[in-house]
Amino acid sequence: MSLIEDFRTIMLENKIDFYIVPTSDYHNSEYISPYFKCRQYLSNFTGSAGTLLITKTTAYLWVDGRYFLQADNQVDSKEINVIKMGTPNSMTIFELLKSKLEKNDCIGFDGKLFSCSFVNELKKQFDFELNLNTKIDLFDGFWIDRPKLPFSSIYQLDMIYCGEEYKDKLAKVLAKMNEYNCDMHIISSLTDQAWLYNLRGNDIERTPVFLAYTVIDNKDTRLFVDTKKINPDVKEYLKANKIIVKTYNDFYKYISGISNKHILIDSKKINYEIYNSIKFNNNIVDKENPTILLKAIKNKTEIENIIEAQVKDASSIIKFIYQVKTAKDAEYTELTLCKLLESLREKHEGFVDLSFDTICAFNEHGAIVHYEATEQTNIPVTGNGLLLVDTGGHYLEGTTDITRTIGIGKITDEMKVAYTTVLKAHIALATAVFLKGTPANVLDMLPRQQLWKSKLDYRHGTGHGVGYLLSVHEEPNRFSYKYPSIPIEPGMITTNEPGVYVENKFGVRLENELLCINDISNEYGDFLKFQTISYVPFDQDCIKPSLLTKPEKDWINDYHETLYKKVSRSLTKPERDWLKLICKPL
Amino acid sequence: MSLIEDFRTIMLENKIDFYIVPTSDYHNSEYISPYFKCRQYLSNFTGSAGTLLITKTTAYLWVDGRYFLQADNQVDSKEINVIKMGTPNSMTIFELLKSKLEKNDCIGFDGKLFSCSFVNELKKQFDFELNLNTKIDLFDGFWIDRPKLPFSSIYQLDMIYCGEEYKDKLAKVLAKMNEYNCDMHIISSLTDQAWLYNLRGNDIERTPVFLAYTVIDNKDTRLFVDTKKINPDVKEYLKANKIIVKTYNDFYKYISGISNKHILIDSKKINYEIYNSIKFNNNIVDKENPTILLKAIKNKTEIENIIEAQVKDASSIIKFIYQVKTAKDAEYTELTLCKLLESLREKHEGFVDLSFDTICAFNEHGAIVHYEATEQTNIPVTGNGLLLVDTGGHYLEGTTDITRTIGIGKITDEMKVAYTTVLKAHIALATAVFLKGTPANVLDMLPRQQLWKSKLDYRHGTGHGVGYLLSVHEEPNRFSYKYPSIPIEPGMITTNEPGVYVENKFGVRLENELLCINDISNEYGDFLKFQTISYVPFDQDCIKPSLLTKPEKDWINDYHETLYKKVSRSLTKPERDWLKLICKPL
Repeated sequence: MSLIEDFRTIMLENKIDFYIVPTSDYHNSEYISPYFKCRQYLSNFTGSAGTLLITKTTAYLWVDGRYFLQADNQVDSKEINVIKMGTPNSMTIFELLKSKLEKNDCIGFDGKLFSCSFVNELKKQFDFELNLNTKIDLFDGFWIDRPKLPFSSIYQLDMIYCGEEYKDKLAKVLAKMNEYNCDMHIISSLTDQAWLYNLRGNDIERTPVFLAYTVIDNKDTRLFVDTKKINPDVKEYLKANKIIVKTYNDFYKYISGISNKHILIDSKKINYEIYNSIKFNNNIVDKENPTILLKAIKNKTEIENIIEAQVKDASSIIKFIYQVKTAKDAEYTELTLCKLLESLREKHEGFVDLSFDTICAFNEHGAIVHYEATEQTNIPVTGNGLLLVDTGGHYLEGTTDITRTIGIGKITDEMKVAYTTVLKAHIALATAVFLKGTPANVLDMLPRQQLWKSKLDYRHGTGHGVGYLLSVHEEPNRFSYKYPSIPIEPGMITTNEPGVYVENKFGVRLENELLCINDISNEYGDFLKFQTISYVPFDQDCIKPSLLTKPEKDWINDYHETLYKKVSRSLTKPERDWLKLICKPL
Repeated sequence: MSLIEDFRTIMLENKIDFYIVPTSDYHNSEYISPYFKCRQYLSNFTGSAGTLLITKTTAYLWVDGRYFLQADNQVDSKEINVIKMGTPNSMTIFELLKSKLEKNDCIGFDGKLFSCSFVNELKKQFDFELNLNTKIDLFDGFWIDRPKLPFSSIYQLDMIYCGEEYKDKLAKVLAKMNEYNCDMHIISSLTDQAWLYNLRGNDIERTPVFLAYTVIDNKDTRLFVDTKKINPDVKEYLKANKIIVKTYNDFYKYISGISNKHILIDSKKINYEIYNSIKFNNNIVDKENPTILLKAIKNKTEIENIIEAQVKDASSIIKFIYQVKTAKDAEYTELTLCKLLESLREKHEGFVDLSFDTICAFNEHGAIVHYEATEQTNIPVTGNGLLLVDTGGHYLEGTTDITRTIGIGKITDEMKVAYTTVLKAHIALATAVFLKGTPANVLDMLPRQQLWKSKLDYRHGTGHGVGYLLSVHEEPNRFSYKYPSIPIEPGMITTNEPGVYVENKFGVRLENELLCINDISNEYGDFLKFQTISYVPFDQDCIKPSLLTKPEKDWINDYHETLYKKVSRSLTKPERDWLKLICKPL
């Protein structure tokens, strides 16, 4: 019997006809600790996002554009139908459930793993009362060697790094609660809590947070956390700030005792079980967590630090590219290159962790948007072609995210045209000027248009927010033309990462981070623009200058001059001479 | 006593503390017949949009960016505060009412003049039950010489013009009602009804529609209209199509008798009194009128006709520009030029009416976005400067809308830079390529970016839909970056009209109409693009070629070549020779 057939046996025992396995934890985190990797355990698909639905006779796995190829490679197509989201005729999970579900069928899932808004949306699909079992984690007992819940020490982020004290951040959250007429606020998202308290942990890979819940009212702040994670210094700090510490496991009991409050919750963030636990005599005000926008707008200290982190990070990547491009007879593979890059980063003071697993993808692997080299897929990086490297680090001075596509040996004209088109798209966004209040998705037209004019596209957003020693993918700022979005504000940091992917051949992605800053103000309003804060050169071996306009060439030359000034002092003499050479004006 | 003071007396008599006077009729029309011009009567402001609020002590007039200067010129600032919508610190009418209203104050207005959604929004602002009087038209009796309700004959639009029969259009509406589980649909918007029935009238200036209401159910279609407007041919046509004709005044009584139906209504379109008249035992389904999207996507016959109308219209405008540019010692004024243009249009077979009052604005008047020359404002068009002409016609073959800015005498460098920047913005949209599904507002970034890079902007959308012998401003397609909007689809026609306005100096606006057509389809999806279907040259006297890129120049040259081929046969020999000259390649 296969694992999925075994799983059906326990579904049957529990009278469940459809069981949904998301990629999530109790805190709606993007990356999850091993304890929560049930979808991967059951489906074999290792991607960072995807939803599995097991029915009595078959199974479905929904994956997004980043994972179309990877999912096909990893799952057993005899057992699981891979559904490619957004492609013509692909059904959503709601549409599929609507087409299959019969009136008395039971849908089961662990309510702690789903946002309220997902469950509300599910209920809305049916004009009859659904038979739901939301309190059941079928993997409990079924997954024999299931890892434990994560455990890591919590540490404090000094004012020289975070730039704003907890009490000042709390005051802003309380002001927002007051604006919404709320006397209580529940936060379960981990990055929001880490930001608020100026605390960090290591419970989730590549995300320096710790499992916790927070309840704020007009008098007190209650932090629900595994108290063993708190060392004496942090204990002292929490006490000094009058933060009441309760144990992690007491949270659901605590909130079920709340009465007659106006509670601010973010239904997109909190899980369904939290919502379910709150008594009816409370008044729920469903608004975005105030911490989301507050932490997205970086303060002066954070911005200064981030630029320092970017310079450190850039020096590692430039050293890396130097070794890759100048190596004679080196026998690199995708995996050894990942290790090489990590070893170069680890040397920096203040380095904490990678901000995500490095994507190091040669030629055809570059076409797999979120490729991760494994022992099975690893190939030598030799001969000719394009090496796509998407990588980032966490430093005490902030988090980085950058992608470079590097020419190895001889580059075909097709590759150069693709590279240069992506570079034009990149420059179109980097040089954008816009009135305050412009929705961020509208800006996505500038890079897209460069691709669309060549009848090309990329199946991912053009950019996402980046946290400060938090998640490398941070809300609410993003560039994604399809979805209405909030305006970009000064202090926000967002990536700029257009791409082109030619299946079975190569991929090109060029990513820098953009800091939004003020331009001039006049009778039309306040104009804003971007400052590029990643400092790694583009590869002139891959650029076709005849496709570039004069302003585009000027931008590249200015960019190379700036980064040379910033980074060259961190390099050895041979590296510096080489950098000077590859940064020569176009 | 002033008129407004008199008005306060009858407000007092009727125990009304706040009275709202919108710019609207019973059908939420954009342009309104003289009977409904109460706001203009009371405030003296002649703009096509604006809302007046009279309180016991003062009055407020909300105007949009098009009318900031005009409103200041026309209203008595001692009596009325002009509120410039969208400027910093400007209050909305809701915010103002919230700040002034006391609990027992009565807000009065004629509920037939307000959309449901406006009244619902108003109610939402207050956490107490509002004291509303929505059944009172205070102008009834107060406005002594009030014009009568409009009266015009209804005529039929032949299949060679409309391209689709009523019964086929009805079938599509019924299918949509079925999709929404509705067995009844009420339509009150006049253009939707005129489109559905393939009938036209002349009840509203510049909009060939007739006052009517429609109720569709699964069995019958009921048309509520002043039966005296129906001639024997139309009567026969209605009978043949089994359309039940009822008198206009019976509508409210009829709908108050409806019971136990699922009624599809568009709360943004129907007035509050309609909503109020429907009994509670009916089920309201609030969705956009299906006719809105159906009529926006022009059929093959309509498109062929529209291109013919555009060629006719262009020949008039080219003759007009020829006369303006080559006239020696002609003593033109803004008003005589309006008449000249109208007389040139009137000569065409199939000409019905102007599609809106021509804007003919010289120099500083060009900075007033919707300037209308009057005897008081009229100035000679002599000497040097820019003449902005925004104009359009209704033909049996469709409706046109075009703007050209014409150099008279010597043009300053500032004017040339402005003209060329607007032209670059115009070309950026005209040459856009986009994936099917791209929201229309996102496309607005392409023209805006050209202006924003020069720290300029225009306070209006970049484009609006154009009806077929209906409203020159047609929903739902528009280019306006701030507001989430539906995707542009093949068959939609939308204007492309960026501008630059330098207060007290000049204005530049360059407007063509864009037909959305299919480009290629590939693995990324279906690409769409635009075909420009207005055929009037740009003024090379105003272009600064050094600011244009090679592709921009190529586009202008291609455009001029195309229009010369289309229009030259309708011109006299001297006009044709002149056109050839001014269309010479850049």
